[in-house]
Amino acid sequence: MVEREPNDPDLDAIFGALAHPTRRALIEQLAGGPASVGDLAEPHDVSLAAVSKHLQVLGDAGLIEVEKDGRVRRCHLDAAPLSDAFGWLTRYRVLWEDRFDALADHLENEEQ
Amino acid sequence: MVEREPNDPDLDAIFGALAHPTRRALIEQLAGGPASVGDLAEPHDVSLAAVSKHLQVLGDAGLIEVEKDGRVRRCHLDAAPLSDAFGWLTRYRVLWEDRFDALADHLENEEQ
Repeated sequence: MVEREPNDPDLDAIFGALAHPTRRALIEQLAGGPASVGDLAEPHDVSLAAVSKHLQVLGDAGLIEVEKDGRVRRCHLDAAPLSDAFGWLTRYRVLWEDRFDALADHLENEEQ
Repeated sequence: MVEREPNDPDLDAIFGALAHPTRRALIEQLAGGPASVGDLAEPHDVSLAAVSKHLQVLGDAGLIEVEKDGRVRRCHLDAAPLSDAFGWLTRYRVLWEDRFDALADHLENEEQ
């Protein structure tokens, strides 16, 4: 059991939410602006119930908020958890940048 | 079923691998340099078998390579999948940067 501070991002839930192509596609759709569950489901070759389940996972990770507008459920993207995931990965950025630098040096030496 | 090109990163496996605190801690340990499975397991309050399972998940996502050195299994971090995850998140960077800009503007207006 990992103790988390109240304001700590839930990276397990965030990375877990990103670990499915349909959920990443839903984020891409919502990056264009809020959308109803029906509109979000349309391009996907899965049931409305399956899309709702994916939206639930995104909601649990804090990635979307659902607002009821009469009979329509409208989803909004909240980018803060994406920023948290990005922040975690940034700590290791030096590792792949070093790798690319080493590759660039290698190619430069080959040219000489 | 999502079709992937041979060189496409397996973002499902990569994000899935990052969705556990022990696996993120193992990445942090390996960022300091290669280590044996025994050394990696030491700070974790779980069995060697459980650590091996986590290392298997990291390996399946391409995040580590395991090299046999006699009886010792030595793990190396491969940062390329972290770079792939970072690349995917970068596409949405404008969303949280806009949010921070809006917050900064708001605070600036409050001060005036």
